[in-house]
Amino acid sequence: MPEYRVKLKKEIKRRIAFGHPWIYENEIAEEPSCENGSLVKVFTYSGQFVGKGYYNRNSLIRVRLLTRKNVNIDRKFFKDKIQRAYSLRTRWLKEKGAFRLIYSEADGLPGLIVDKFADFFVVQISTLGMSKFKETIVNVLIELFNPKGIYEKSEGSFIAKEGIEPYSGWLYGNGPNLIPFKLHEITFLADLHGQKTGFFLDQRFNAENLSEFSTDRRVLDLFSYTGNFAFHLLKGGAREAILVDYSERALAVAEEIARINSFKEKIRTINANSFDFIRNVKIGEFELIVIDPPAMLKSATAKHNALRAYKELNLRAIRSLKDGGILATSSCTQLIRESEWLEKITEAFKDSKKIGKLLFSAGQPFDHPALTSMHESNYLKFRSYIVSSVSEF
Amino acid sequence: MPEYRVKLKKEIKRRIAFGHPWIYENEIAEEPSCENGSLVKVFTYSGQFVGKGYYNRNSLIRVRLLTRKNVNIDRKFFKDKIQRAYSLRTRWLKEKGAFRLIYSEADGLPGLIVDKFADFFVVQISTLGMSKFKETIVNVLIELFNPKGIYEKSEGSFIAKEGIEPYSGWLYGNGPNLIPFKLHEITFLADLHGQKTGFFLDQRFNAENLSEFSTDRRVLDLFSYTGNFAFHLLKGGAREAILVDYSERALAVAEEIARINSFKEKIRTINANSFDFIRNVKIGEFELIVIDPPAMLKSATAKHNALRAYKELNLRAIRSLKDGGILATSSCTQLIRESEWLEKITEAFKDSKKIGKLLFSAGQPFDHPALTSMHESNYLKFRSYIVSSVSEF
Repeated sequence: MPEYRVKLKKEIKRRIAFGHPWIYENEIAEEPSCENGSLVKVFTYSGQFVGKGYYNRNSLIRVRLLTRKNVNIDRKFFKDKIQRAYSLRTRWLKEKGAFRLIYSEADGLPGLIVDKFADFFVVQISTLGMSKFKETIVNVLIELFNPKGIYEKSEGSFIAKEGIEPYSGWLYGNGPNLIPFKLHEITFLADLHGQKTGFFLDQRFNAENLSEFSTDRRVLDLFSYTGNFAFHLLKGGAREAILVDYSERALAVAEEIARINSFKEKIRTINANSFDFIRNVKIGEFELIVIDPPAMLKSATAKHNALRAYKELNLRAIRSLKDGGILATSSCTQLIRESEWLEKITEAFKDSKKIGKLLFSAGQPFDHPALTSMHESNYLKFRSYIVSSVSEF
Repeated sequence: MPEYRVKLKKEIKRRIAFGHPWIYENEIAEEPSCENGSLVKVFTYSGQFVGKGYYNRNSLIRVRLLTRKNVNIDRKFFKDKIQRAYSLRTRWLKEKGAFRLIYSEADGLPGLIVDKFADFFVVQISTLGMSKFKETIVNVLIELFNPKGIYEKSEGSFIAKEGIEPYSGWLYGNGPNLIPFKLHEITFLADLHGQKTGFFLDQRFNAENLSEFSTDRRVLDLFSYTGNFAFHLLKGGAREAILVDYSERALAVAEEIARINSFKEKIRTINANSFDFIRNVKIGEFELIVIDPPAMLKSATAKHNALRAYKELNLRAIRSLKDGGILATSSCTQLIRESEWLEKITEAFKDSKKIGKLLFSAGQPFDHPALTSMHESNYLKFRSYIVSSVSEF
């Protein structure tokens, strides 16, 4: 196999030297002649080795670095990275029923996400370069963990731009479309026909921590998906949970999770747009409201609108809470900074003449680690507050 | 008793309407003729009732509001507030060995802090207005909780400006100078001759959460005070902990805590300035470093220097960690915003060519609640990271 080289422009970017793994089109002095998806070696203008990665002319991010070392990108390379990621998780996670095994750049494997649900893996590949190693990855997962099944779920509009076909299906073994797994003594279901890898693992500890405050409360779970928050809060003693989601399928899965965990009598699912739904909730109707909307924008252009939407959502939720109620609010929009989002939350409190008393603040769990070298890896923001009227304070 | 009135300027400040409890000199149209420390009623320019609070001409903050209701500020008023604060804590705290019962404005009692250590209370009064109710507060605490002792520890330079004398001593009952209390199965000691109320309770959950990552690690606890972090981390399985603090007394108390908990063989105390100490630590000497410096500035003037100090501290600590080591860093400087502080942490990582992988982020515990209506109540910032070299990533 010929060796392709990418030469950077004269001044190596500090961003790259400091650990950021992306090399943009405008940072390259000489592009290689290789096919898209090929491995390349990256050098500074003066010829110093920077690292190895894969190349794609269809992307503004021309190279995603896999390593800073001059090593072979082979089966051993992937095995080492996957083993490191696994031991990081299992060493510290008390709850091993499900976790994110590989979080892309944060585990040194850009374009690859692997979630583990019980004895199954769900793999998501989002770049052409990583897709070339699909077989290697599957083989390593089989060798290391002997799973019952490995399912690929690579979807989304960005995939086509990379030059790969969306694909969903079993790569190894097989299993049910709804994979049962345990989290904090609750049996959840990862839906292989659902969103992303089938379950959003990034909010599981925030839900568990929030459950300490849920006793006897009437809960509204907006953008509930299959009910991560709702079921944690019911386990914590909530009286009742209303789940609102635009996906009928997600709510059907939630009903099934309720059945398995004997929460059928305590939930109600409402198939609606949560933005619309919250507009019509009566003042003071709930004692705990969870807001966990999907990412609101994919480009910076719509930022202003997204911030307005966050404010509106939180304002409506605050009004819909009884005095002493709890607001648990989050944002997974990477392009919105925490400080910008918090400003909107604060405005929402002020405009409704309420005071929020912080219960706890949080972000991503450590199996979805944010990197100091890559602000793009930092996306999840979470706050919970006790809500009181200014007049009653 | 005559009723004193404070009239606000024409446009009532939105800040006050939205729940901020301070009224500044320049917001008042007509000052009252009362003595400093007196109760006053506050009205808008057009005569609408705003709330009740206490007044002090010696302070730029002329009035601190106690309530938005037109009620008597009497024993019942204090009893209600203290009961509400108590039930908020005890309802949700699993660990009740020690907690902050009253956190000033966040519990509607500006100028008053009350920490509970086992069967003792430590009271800190920082305003003239609140000092007038000292007897009431003590009586209510006795009635509600029948404590073994109530100790007042009202110190600090700001107190003189208010027009009150610093005071430390038993207000009721008595007890040892070192009050033993349990936190997460460790026996700690609140030092009545130490700093603030004798123990910093605001980092106890962050220390407990960090202890999950401490197994077998060699720990450096900078600005350790009496070792909240060190002992939590030893409980979590740390191999050894070096405590560095400028206070000989704090370290003597730490030695005593070590003795009680049978950690004597596992700690070493070093009486030094932590800023100086970290400069001389060898590269890669530790596997976990805690940075918990005291508040770095009391006015905005020295902000630039404080930010530089945070960067320097973190940079040195990052360099002193083995690859795969953990940095647990915090800031309790209220005047420095989280985003500003995080920027310095990120710079420290970059300048040392290291990558920080976020373990968890946190802030204040809910018995020190930050209010959305009062940015001054928000002070504590905490992050923990796994540290790797860019070259090894």
